[in-house]
Amino acid sequence: MPHDTPPPAPPFTTVAWSPDRRSVRLLDQRLLPESEHYFEVRAVDEMIRAIRTLAVRGAPAIGVAAALGLVVALEHALESLPHGRSPREPLALLAAALEAARPTAVNLRWALQRLLALAASVRDEQLLSALRTEATRILDEDRTMCDAIGQAGAPLICEGASILTHCNAGALATVGIGTALAPMYVAHARNVPFRVYAGETRPLLQGARLTAWELNRAGIDVTVLPDSAAASLLRSGEIHAVFVGADRIAANGDVANKIGTYPLALAAQTHNVPFHVCAPWSTFDPATSRGEEIEIELRGRTELALAGDRTVLPPHVLVHNPAFDVTPRAMVTSYITDRGIMAPPFY
Amino acid sequence: MPHDTPPPAPPFTTVAWSPDRRSVRLLDQRLLPESEHYFEVRAVDEMIRAIRTLAVRGAPAIGVAAALGLVVALEHALESLPHGRSPREPLALLAAALEAARPTAVNLRWALQRLLALAASVRDEQLLSALRTEATRILDEDRTMCDAIGQAGAPLICEGASILTHCNAGALATVGIGTALAPMYVAHARNVPFRVYAGETRPLLQGARLTAWELNRAGIDVTVLPDSAAASLLRSGEIHAVFVGADRIAANGDVANKIGTYPLALAAQTHNVPFHVCAPWSTFDPATSRGEEIEIELRGRTELALAGDRTVLPPHVLVHNPAFDVTPRAMVTSYITDRGIMAPPFY
Repeated sequence: MPHDTPPPAPPFTTVAWSPDRRSVRLLDQRLLPESEHYFEVRAVDEMIRAIRTLAVRGAPAIGVAAALGLVVALEHALESLPHGRSPREPLALLAAALEAARPTAVNLRWALQRLLALAASVRDEQLLSALRTEATRILDEDRTMCDAIGQAGAPLICEGASILTHCNAGALATVGIGTALAPMYVAHARNVPFRVYAGETRPLLQGARLTAWELNRAGIDVTVLPDSAAASLLRSGEIHAVFVGADRIAANGDVANKIGTYPLALAAQTHNVPFHVCAPWSTFDPATSRGEEIEIELRGRTELALAGDRTVLPPHVLVHNPAFDVTPRAMVTSYITDRGIMAPPFY
Repeated sequence: MPHDTPPPAPPFTTVAWSPDRRSVRLLDQRLLPESEHYFEVRAVDEMIRAIRTLAVRGAPAIGVAAALGLVVALEHALESLPHGRSPREPLALLAAALEAARPTAVNLRWALQRLLALAASVRDEQLLSALRTEATRILDEDRTMCDAIGQAGAPLICEGASILTHCNAGALATVGIGTALAPMYVAHARNVPFRVYAGETRPLLQGARLTAWELNRAGIDVTVLPDSAAASLLRSGEIHAVFVGADRIAANGDVANKIGTYPLALAAQTHNVPFHVCAPWSTFDPATSRGEEIEIELRGRTELALAGDRTVLPPHVLVHNPAFDVTPRAMVTSYITDRGIMAPPFY
């Protein structure tokens, strides 16, 4: 298959308009991997609950869900708007409520601000249709971003390769084919045979619950391992490349990503395995010059204290539970972006 | 406190004679960390079940439990021995049954063989009392071994130090104060202030469930972290030394230990943190020349597929679940043994 083949459709749809465009259809990620269930939301409080409880997750997917959610909630509100009142009032209230759903998700704020900026430039009668068009554009752009990363990265997956990944930077985190997993979906569509090893990603197990689920569903050979087994696997020579996503990339190329990324990079460097970081250009932050400037969120003890219904941590024992770590630029082989493969300095 | 102070008693007793010496008293490790419960076993099938279901675990503790278990089971059997029958018959049967409880536990076989060898040299009338004395000696020797490791390693724990450990090579795995944790118990008894970070140790969480429980119970400051957070903690400069146990040490110094030990050693070496391996001399295997010769047990998918009552792995997804990894000799700062601190070549 030639390399300019159109990229594959995502194996499922995390966020979409319902057929009548009066609701947003979401894949309920809370039920994965046990069941694949879709549900529709219309009222703003339903969408806020879906975002807060991680029915929809991953920064790009959350941004799209909020954009579509704002449009359907506004339509709903306008149906009962008292005569003579401006549609701008419910719009502002709904946007503010959605923005508060997960205050740290940067794409959420970005998508809503983009819709509000557009709203300021159109007449009342055009408001709803203009917003619907713009929300659809945000959705389409996310899909295009994923495709571009996939096209750029797929040539790095050789026939018969074994690829290691961590956490979930996949289709479940976007409305397209993901970021770190996008090159895999493209290579798979080109009939390149390869297999994936996915670190289970403690403490929330996104590798086991989500990455293994979506790759398996797409027919890609995937094997799950404890995070601490990756170093000896890299040492064994069985792995040809590591592909991970990124939460923020500093101007010098240091990468903040899910905890456990740095030890993978260290073992990959030690054993001469290429280490690729896949992210949209929007993840590159010119305002952060080096990784040391990135503040690392420390999370609570519940994630380590419970395994399903079982208590696995004694009372009073403290935890050290950072959400992210920083991989130094020197350990990254390439940055695979929607603008192609890049290297620092980026600016 | 002078450094020749007697070492501290273990904070609890994993395996002991019952007060009347007619049963073996075990700490039920299946219920940790939720409750500290002791129970007594006498019949051989009770002891086999206790070993198989991990009520008692850790190679040294299993060896002691089997030795004491053989004696009480033999006493029980002799009470109903038909007149004129030799006590050697039930002895051989009971030993064979106990040895099959966990076929790979080398200390289990070693302890039983030691009792059988002694039995061959005493008269029938002395059999039971001679075996009881020898079983008690095995128990006492295990405690002495732990104390010696503790005395040898304690000077490596400086005032105010932060120590990182992995899995459980503690009092729960022995009848004494453990192996990797022994220097910590001795330093604590000498009033040296320090804190411990324990990797939770996926997939079975021995770090969270067992190491955190026993250190916390002994009043030692302990913090649990996901295994994948250890590398960035070592990089931060907060950790002064790593202490781990060993399952087997090759003649050249390569160390087989719980999966996740090698990435710790790699990060410790990268960030210039001393990496100490604590093990009795019996763990050193002159018949294995290098780590590559050590066969690594691959375990099944259930350990990764379930979190308490929850399924976290999709059906049909394979796992790579090695129980151990090998740390090369060059990454080990010192070998802390019951014969003092050693370095290869050992023979």
